Amino acid sequence: MAEVIFPYGQLAEFTKAVFLKIGCSEEHAETATRALLSADLRGIDSHGVARLSGYVRLWEVKRVNATPVIKIIHETPSTAVVDGDSGLGLVVAPFAMQVAIEKAKQVGTGWVSVQNSNHFGIAAHHAMMALEYDMIGMAMTNASPLVAPTFSTDKMLGTNPICVAAPAGAEPPFVADLATTTAANGKLEILQRKNLDTPTGWVQDKEGNTSHDPHILKKGGALLPLGGDREHGSHKGYALGAVVDIFSALLSGANYAPWVPPFPAYVPMPVQQPGKGIGHFLGAMRVDAFRPANEFKQSMDHWIQGFRNCKPIPGEEKVLVPGDPEREFEAERMAKGIPLLEAVVEDLKGLGEKFSLYFGGK
Amino acid sequence: MAEVIFPYGQLAEFTKAVFLKIGCSEEHAETATRALLSADLRGIDSHGVARLSGYVRLWEVKRVNATPVIKIIHETPSTAVVDGDSGLGLVVAPFAMQVAIEKAKQVGTGWVSVQNSNHFGIAAHHAMMALEYDMIGMAMTNASPLVAPTFSTDKMLGTNPICVAAPAGAEPPFVADLATTTAANGKLEILQRKNLDTPTGWVQDKEGNTSHDPHILKKGGALLPLGGDREHGSHKGYALGAVVDIFSALLSGANYAPWVPPFPAYVPMPVQQPGKGIGHFLGAMRVDAFRPANEFKQSMDHWIQGFRNCKPIPGEEKVLVPGDPEREFEAERMAKGIPLLEAVVEDLKGLGEKFSLYFGGK
Repeated sequence: MAEVIFPYGQLAEFTKAVFLKIGCSEEHAETATRALLSADLRGIDSHGVARLSGYVRLWEVKRVNATPVIKIIHETPSTAVVDGDSGLGLVVAPFAMQVAIEKAKQVGTGWVSVQNSNHFGIAAHHAMMALEYDMIGMAMTNASPLVAPTFSTDKMLGTNPICVAAPAGAEPPFVADLATTTAANGKLEILQRKNLDTPTGWVQDKEGNTSHDPHILKKGGALLPLGGDREHGSHKGYALGAVVDIFSALLSGANYAPWVPPFPAYVPMPVQQPGKGIGHFLGAMRVDAFRPANEFKQSMDHWIQGFRNCKPIPGEEKVLVPGDPEREFEAERMAKGIPLLEAVVEDLKGLGEKFSLYFGGK
Repeated sequence: MAEVIFPYGQLAEFTKAVFLKIGCSEEHAETATRALLSADLRGIDSHGVARLSGYVRLWEVKRVNATPVIKIIHETPSTAVVDGDSGLGLVVAPFAMQVAIEKAKQVGTGWVSVQNSNHFGIAAHHAMMALEYDMIGMAMTNASPLVAPTFSTDKMLGTNPICVAAPAGAEPPFVADLATTTAANGKLEILQRKNLDTPTGWVQDKEGNTSHDPHILKKGGALLPLGGDREHGSHKGYALGAVVDIFSALLSGANYAPWVPPFPAYVPMPVQQPGKGIGHFLGAMRVDAFRPANEFKQSMDHWIQGFRNCKPIPGEEKVLVPGDPEREFEAERMAKGIPLLEAVVEDLKGLGEKFSLYFGGK
């Protein structure tokens, strides 16, 4: 499928203008744009500007509040619960992460559970906010139910990602950002476009049988937890997704399990709503709350170099450290621009027409 | 292979006597016994009393200090680093977990990274200490390198388990305790005894090829990270194992990556030692630092019941909640006794002879 390349600045200008048009403040539009486009820069195309019109549709059906009053509703020296006031997760999560960072400055660590939010883009963007403070950052979120727990046909969990970002010294930071499923939904979309089968262990059909159909989610199928099946450890992926749900929603009072609001605005809201909106969990640990930061960072450099110098399997070029592929994408795309599929370009043009904004590109 | 059944009390009495014989204090012998046998009770036979003689051998070669002075060497209101003084991890980890709990009482959460320790048994035992305080408990540890990162043939990480335990109300607690590999080493031992092949995705040979040989670790092979291979998400299992290593050892100053000391006393210590001993990471979060504990526990009950009532795949009896299988084992084994393989019984008899202690059983 044909692609068109856009400079980061051009996409950022347009995205911010759209957020301003729906009523976001200058500051919120700026924050949301940075969070959203960090996905495009890092090569997570499914979570970036391709979703902009999806966020707008959520605003149109009043599931997103463009002018939220985001506030702390409970706190201790090392914890807080934040109410996102139905705001964009792209704005609520950075607010909550900043709260975690301020608490870590005071008492060593900060942990913030968030209720009443919406999808927050990629977890890495929020977790990485901690790095400049010499802190380890963590970010998780629950999401619409697409995943069946081990032994079930019911979709009970989202792809519930976990990100951990840790600073290094001379080496770039360690950034692990992973959905707790074998493959995220975006990977299925790629196979759909290419008319290819899904590998074993990614999805099951509505009866719980192995499936290789990338369209199976629309036919009652489900994504599988990391591991794929019981024999390959899917109960572990299920448990990790469950932990994300508990930290993000049970601690905050957000919706959980199959009751998490869907991203597509045309999908009706669950009838039962045990909580408010979507939940996130953000954490920050000051490295020097454990050990002098320079010692930690030297050890991280040694650790990273040890892995990067591992002997590769014959046929593989090199061993990667978590965060390497995304950082390579970011360097290249910041320099050379971000490729968008034509369907995404058309979608953004439509958004431009709706808001009387010009979206360039042939 | 034949098994003999022993009452918990009898195994506990013998185990404690052995710990006393190597010089542990009354209190430490008690603590270590409880931690070690929690594995047998919960059905994790590989980590329980079958390892008692392994701990004794580590003491014989002076890698375990039976009379450690365990102490906090750095702290903030929500964090600490504990030096285990080469003690049994079975004693050091509960000490560190208690520090985390005390900090959580004060400031909402407590996070303790541990250096200079040894193997700590099962993570769940330590994490679950938080439950009685209405706290969420977490426990991780690094371990001897048996696992190859994605694309490599080098063994760089241990099976590095993560446990998260969360209290519920009427329902029993949620307890997720998982090695970050597709299968833990103990699963290979079971297949070895039964002369069965390992499933695809559990291990690779020394060239990095898929292997089905449960003895492959002795032939230069490696365990695989959760996911198995890149296509099935092994980079995620690798990243999770790496996070455990960073939290347990890079934050504390313990040995990390391939330099973690081996459990078998006959395996020489790594020549290079970038840190001290083995590392653990323990955490406690007071539930009411986020939300009234009774509200959280009601939501947990609702969450748990939702999963337990999921529609099972045809042929499967029911959907499990993390912690269910281990709890069922514990109830049964506390009532009816703990089955030990004859080889383990012989090993314990030998230990009894060494210390002039009677180990019963025909």
